[in-house]
Amino acid sequence: MITRARIKWIKSLEMRKFRLLHNAFVAEGPKLVGELLPYSTPLYVAATQEWLTENSHLLSDLTEVDVVNQEELERVSLLRTPQSVLAVMPIREKKLDLATLQSQLVIALDGVQDPGNLGTILRIADWFGIHQILCSEGTADVYNPKCVQSCMGALARVEVHYCNLPDVLACIQMPVYGTFLDGTDIYGEALSAYGIIVMGNEGNGISKEVAKLVSHRLYIPNFPKGSFTTESLNVAIATGIVCAEFRRRMN
Amino acid sequence: MITRARIKWIKSLEMRKFRLLHNAFVAEGPKLVGELLPYSTPLYVAATQEWLTENSHLLSDLTEVDVVNQEELERVSLLRTPQSVLAVMPIREKKLDLATLQSQLVIALDGVQDPGNLGTILRIADWFGIHQILCSEGTADVYNPKCVQSCMGALARVEVHYCNLPDVLACIQMPVYGTFLDGTDIYGEALSAYGIIVMGNEGNGISKEVAKLVSHRLYIPNFPKGSFTTESLNVAIATGIVCAEFRRRMN
Repeated sequence: MITRARIKWIKSLEMRKFRLLHNAFVAEGPKLVGELLPYSTPLYVAATQEWLTENSHLLSDLTEVDVVNQEELERVSLLRTPQSVLAVMPIREKKLDLATLQSQLVIALDGVQDPGNLGTILRIADWFGIHQILCSEGTADVYNPKCVQSCMGALARVEVHYCNLPDVLACIQMPVYGTFLDGTDIYGEALSAYGIIVMGNEGNGISKEVAKLVSHRLYIPNFPKGSFTTESLNVAIATGIVCAEFRRRMN
Repeated sequence: MITRARIKWIKSLEMRKFRLLHNAFVAEGPKLVGELLPYSTPLYVAATQEWLTENSHLLSDLTEVDVVNQEELERVSLLRTPQSVLAVMPIREKKLDLATLQSQLVIALDGVQDPGNLGTILRIADWFGIHQILCSEGTADVYNPKCVQSCMGALARVEVHYCNLPDVLACIQMPVYGTFLDGTDIYGEALSAYGIIVMGNEGNGISKEVAKLVSHRLYIPNFPKGSFTTESLNVAIATGIVCAEFRRRMN
């Protein structure tokens, strides 16, 4: 049985302001929760007896637990089809340390608005061994339930920092790459093993303020080059292609 | 003023069986409708006076038109936030001709279920000059409103054929590529300028039946190679990276 106060607390975490206030977010489903457990101790878990029988050894004594049936789970879930476990996880934001970025490949998102795109980009970062993502203040919240559910365990392995992106880019001593429709063919450019890859907003691309700080303007060529096609690639697709190309050069 | 019968007709097109019955689908918004108009004559248009003033010269006499206000548009729209124009477009499926595929690069989708992924893959195909997509019978419907809205004008330039995919692959005389977690590094493989690129279901990948017909098993290496990361890339991201690599070799 889940208390009313607890239901209210969980439901409130659907909104960013309450996530910030409580410093917590919701993760659901056995796969996602299972991937997060090795990295972080939940504040709270609501789970079916079945899930608990298999997984309670993974929980610490610090986690409060409610055993629930499907009906109760549906009452607290933020999803349409809740599955056996819901966990409230602590948000542990590490302070951004520019020095640690210096020798790495880093993704910077300038106003990516769709939480699904953000989640997909986290998975891309994780796949390609990119451990740091910088987000402009206008970028979607990584702890939005839609993003959490789509990025799976990547959330535990990739650090996301919200910051004043122009300020950070202005004082970083690394090449800054960005994709532009009038950039130069990425396959003809020298790509460094480290640097910042800036990806822009879904509709408007990279903002003017950030564009000024991009030192290498790239372009993913369409085929045949210069033919009349789709206006642009989806931002997550472009991120995938650019990251794959950076890593191909290093292999 | 839109008649009741017409509202019923439009609303019915949200469902696949009625799209098949009426041989029509719904496209909405000035950008998408504007991109489709040069390729196809709508059966019907509901639009604001503003849109019509600017665009009526693009419509033929064959299109029935209702001038509507925002409130009426909301009543017929399949979207949450309808924008100035809704068009009912004819579905014109061309017969699949295996001979025309022979010298081309073709994408085959084996059970891709999410209409958003399908739409994104159409945009990728369009960007990379891939004009033919084969879909297994279990793949999402390209005329699903969510897919239509996400693939934009690519829908007009890329032909999508639903077919018995194993049967088609079995009789085609081209290399068949597919991505598998145990495939060989795509960057070390010879890639042909033509062939079929098979992409699988979001959760289960390529089906066993289709996997038997894949002649070249590829893998997009993570970084560092063999490290512990996200289980797999989203299917649309993988499609983007594979298509970019095929086209890079040809440039």
